[in-house]
Amino acid sequence: MSHYVIGLDYGSDSVRALLVDTADGRELASHVVNYPRWAKGLYCAPQLDQFRQHPQDYLDGLEQVLQGLWLQAPAGSAAKVIGLSVDTTGSTPVAINQDGVALSLLPEFAENPNAMFVLWKDHTAVEEAAEITAAANANANINYLKFMGGIYSSEWFWAKALHVLRQDPQVRAATYSFVEHCDWITAVLSGTTAPADFRMGRCATGHKMMWHQNWDGFPPNAFFKAIDPLLDGLVDTLNPDTRTSDLCAGRLTVDWAEKLGLPRGIAIGYGAFDCHMGAVAAKVRPGVLTKVMGTSTCDITVADPTLLGDKTVPGICGQVDGSVVPGMIGLEAGQSAFGDLYAWFRDLLSFPLSLVPGLPADSIAAAEDHIIGALSKAAAELKPGQNGLTALDWVNGRRTPDASQRVSMAIMGLKMGSTAPHIFRALVEATAFGSRAINERFRAQGVPVDSITVIGGISKKSPLVMQICADVWNCDIDVLESEQSCALGAAIFAAVAAGAFPNVAAAQEVMASPVCQTYQPQPELVPVYDKLYAQYQQLGEFVEGQSKQQSKLKNNAATQAAGVSA
Amino acid sequence: MSHYVIGLDYGSDSVRALLVDTADGRELASHVVNYPRWAKGLYCAPQLDQFRQHPQDYLDGLEQVLQGLWLQAPAGSAAKVIGLSVDTTGSTPVAINQDGVALSLLPEFAENPNAMFVLWKDHTAVEEAAEITAAANANANINYLKFMGGIYSSEWFWAKALHVLRQDPQVRAATYSFVEHCDWITAVLSGTTAPADFRMGRCATGHKMMWHQNWDGFPPNAFFKAIDPLLDGLVDTLNPDTRTSDLCAGRLTVDWAEKLGLPRGIAIGYGAFDCHMGAVAAKVRPGVLTKVMGTSTCDITVADPTLLGDKTVPGICGQVDGSVVPGMIGLEAGQSAFGDLYAWFRDLLSFPLSLVPGLPADSIAAAEDHIIGALSKAAAELKPGQNGLTALDWVNGRRTPDASQRVSMAIMGLKMGSTAPHIFRALVEATAFGSRAINERFRAQGVPVDSITVIGGISKKSPLVMQICADVWNCDIDVLESEQSCALGAAIFAAVAAGAFPNVAAAQEVMASPVCQTYQPQPELVPVYDKLYAQYQQLGEFVEGQSKQQSKLKNNAATQAAGVSA
Repeated sequence: MSHYVIGLDYGSDSVRALLVDTADGRELASHVVNYPRWAKGLYCAPQLDQFRQHPQDYLDGLEQVLQGLWLQAPAGSAAKVIGLSVDTTGSTPVAINQDGVALSLLPEFAENPNAMFVLWKDHTAVEEAAEITAAANANANINYLKFMGGIYSSEWFWAKALHVLRQDPQVRAATYSFVEHCDWITAVLSGTTAPADFRMGRCATGHKMMWHQNWDGFPPNAFFKAIDPLLDGLVDTLNPDTRTSDLCAGRLTVDWAEKLGLPRGIAIGYGAFDCHMGAVAAKVRPGVLTKVMGTSTCDITVADPTLLGDKTVPGICGQVDGSVVPGMIGLEAGQSAFGDLYAWFRDLLSFPLSLVPGLPADSIAAAEDHIIGALSKAAAELKPGQNGLTALDWVNGRRTPDASQRVSMAIMGLKMGSTAPHIFRALVEATAFGSRAINERFRAQGVPVDSITVIGGISKKSPLVMQICADVWNCDIDVLESEQSCALGAAIFAAVAAGAFPNVAAAQEVMASPVCQTYQPQPELVPVYDKLYAQYQQLGEFVEGQSKQQSKLKNNAATQAAGVSA
Repeated sequence: MSHYVIGLDYGSDSVRALLVDTADGRELASHVVNYPRWAKGLYCAPQLDQFRQHPQDYLDGLEQVLQGLWLQAPAGSAAKVIGLSVDTTGSTPVAINQDGVALSLLPEFAENPNAMFVLWKDHTAVEEAAEITAAANANANINYLKFMGGIYSSEWFWAKALHVLRQDPQVRAATYSFVEHCDWITAVLSGTTAPADFRMGRCATGHKMMWHQNWDGFPPNAFFKAIDPLLDGLVDTLNPDTRTSDLCAGRLTVDWAEKLGLPRGIAIGYGAFDCHMGAVAAKVRPGVLTKVMGTSTCDITVADPTLLGDKTVPGICGQVDGSVVPGMIGLEAGQSAFGDLYAWFRDLLSFPLSLVPGLPADSIAAAEDHIIGALSKAAAELKPGQNGLTALDWVNGRRTPDASQRVSMAIMGLKMGSTAPHIFRALVEATAFGSRAINERFRAQGVPVDSITVIGGISKKSPLVMQICADVWNCDIDVLESEQSCALGAAIFAAVAAGAFPNVAAAQEVMASPVCQTYQPQPELVPVYDKLYAQYQQLGEFVEGQSKQQSKLKNNAATQAAGVSA
């Protein structure tokens, strides 16, 4: 009898379920459901960089996506399922009470964004992140950011938790702990309610929560309390026993088995972040960097712990033993904006569509949908450097190398003849340059990047972007065939957690996705892009200097104001 | 019997005729005609910054605009006209043969852009301008750019002439001399054909052609020949006897009187540039800076020669005795892009309109026309600095202070939340900052700027722009009532040239335009804009440094290449 597994992939906008045969990795069925509240723009304030998601969106989505899956799947499939694993965005934490309930599932917090999941791209915690970085750098014995690139990001767990606690006295009073989306869902499905019993995945804890085996778990309470008394005790509510995703975190409850149409008691694997599992579907290995390219990118590679040793790679998002493949050091980096930069430009250009008298909404939407295609077509006719423009990709701040939410996007070289396609090409080049900066940081720190495998929508949709990336990176790019690699990675982990394979490598042999296309650099363009990349770096240094100066002026003003009032 | 005069104003897109009563300055009638070839985009290559105008456009426009004027004017007006003066854009030179004929009026050159007028905003002569600047700075005894701000611009006479001579062997062979549009039209109307007899206005010769009384006219032939043998002899074809525009340059020929419906033999004044005459209509005087605000700006003031003496103002377009008001030193500065920057952004945003299936051309045009209004409305709701953006206004290069065609526009501080109105407001602020840099240069060099009078379309159309200018400049702004001040200035000069007044001051008393509105700075915003201006300056310094570095790399590459081939 064949055995099936399910990979459940919680993305930024939707949840996807993928049914895979463990015998050959065949993708038997898949279904996607958008989050209904999120789709309406509820609980978000883009101008403030506030992005929140309601836990009910995740739960409703889960039921619906399985219902949809069974409509696609061959009859009798459900009975063959032996395991289910979950990947989610991250860091995406939520405040919970002592019973492990996400606060906004309680009637009194049902409409309070501070009681909801703080989505990875929420940047409301810039100040808190800076304070945590300062505290870690000032700490006497251990720098707890040593394995996280040296800079704590506003996208991460502790900054977001502190921000919510500061912002909202009601939520603060009701909060017992915080939990990452990927760990919360496994707890829900396996019926775990006490936060101390939550099965904590190595990926989220290691990359976002400062967990490390060198200091036997999380940093001590004293460290957090010194940053802000509001954090006092929080770390002690967390289970420090973190595990890799090849292990079984629990068994599907009777209730959820019924709701989802699955056999009771099947294995639920330890959760992890989407891109880490996606990299596993792409057979990530030492020397291969996988980039998941969507609105942002997540860059994942692995290193042999005996070779990397205690060496750290400064300025990346982290290096964690077992966060990707058990037994290997998982290294994570990424760009805060990739497709988001193109989308920003599309939205900017959409401005006049609303000025056409009587134009129906669907015509506006259709024109908007054509913008990037039309820009790509025209931009493909231009030669590298021909447009004279240099842009940065930091429209969402910068995740790596060297996280900073204070930096922003800039473009220079604009002339009267600079048109929308010229600018679009400069933006594509900017995203390729930002990505190159990550490749170069890895290499400079002794982590080899011999070839790059790309995953995600853009890798299939835009030959223009992919060819520019190959030319800018001066490196072969393999495009992964699977359209749902994160869910496939989760399915691979589910298969191992359920015992269908002895380890991840064996499961990958059978289930991982093949490469469907390879882009190669055009040698004559490499030196051209080297020059343009130098300009990108110079513009970046200038913007970085400006943002530091602004921040210094702001701090001085705050210090003076404090001095006067004291 | 009352006496009328005509001001003829050749702008970038059209020619305007204004009929004015010398008794009280009443504007009796006016008419505008667009240049037909220019309107079709002929002979231009915007991507190369090439903008050429056919002399036939000027001649056809002249006949048509007078025909139109007579349809508007009270019956019998034509017979009362005693004088006509001309203003044009500039520097806008054309290659002519020995008979003073603009080459493209000859059949063999009728379609050759190099045989046409090189419009002020044509920037094809960047290299030539740099060579002329270098030669002037290296010259042993006299720096011929001393009174022109120290930098020769690609927008000016000698650079354009040299560029055309280098570019086009056919045109080179047929060229006897070059002449500015304003001097050519007076020659045509007064029947002067020998270039040596052309009546040369003080304005064009002093501001663009290096004429100065300190060196008794133009620089010597040896100076030009050393720059390029192609220039050998050209300066000796020019009439060095330059005059102010209050004087009569000649009498209207019988032929042209017939074509234009005007009395034979009426006075034709010496020609000058549009903004210089516009400033006279605005009663420019020491301490008052007039800014003509259109696609670009022209900033004009005057200084008492006994007070200014031999002192020079570095980095402006020039200081010339009598170029504006006879007996005063006329000082000219200006921004290469003002309204052009807004128009560039409008054109950028128009991109998706063509992607709407089946949208008729007139709907597209209507939406385009609404863009700037809609942006202005939304931008007016924003507070200064709220958008976090800093932009430069150098989308057309920089005319003053310190001319450079190598610099370009840049914008920084862009985030996902940056919308079209945010950017538009930053562009408006950028134009106000660029203008402030001119005010500050004048003041720093001891030329007082106590108040500012603005002329031109934007001053009437955009309260948003005008209020931001007042706040950024920290200075009262008077808006001139006349909608056609350049033509009115030409009419004032025509009245003096025809003898209706003893001098310009007397004519201004009767004929100059009143102020219709005054904008005042909002004191609470002045320090806010001071900070934003400092950011503008820092971004400017960075872009300037980058452009110098690029240019150096280019020169080094060229030197190396030359070394290899030598």
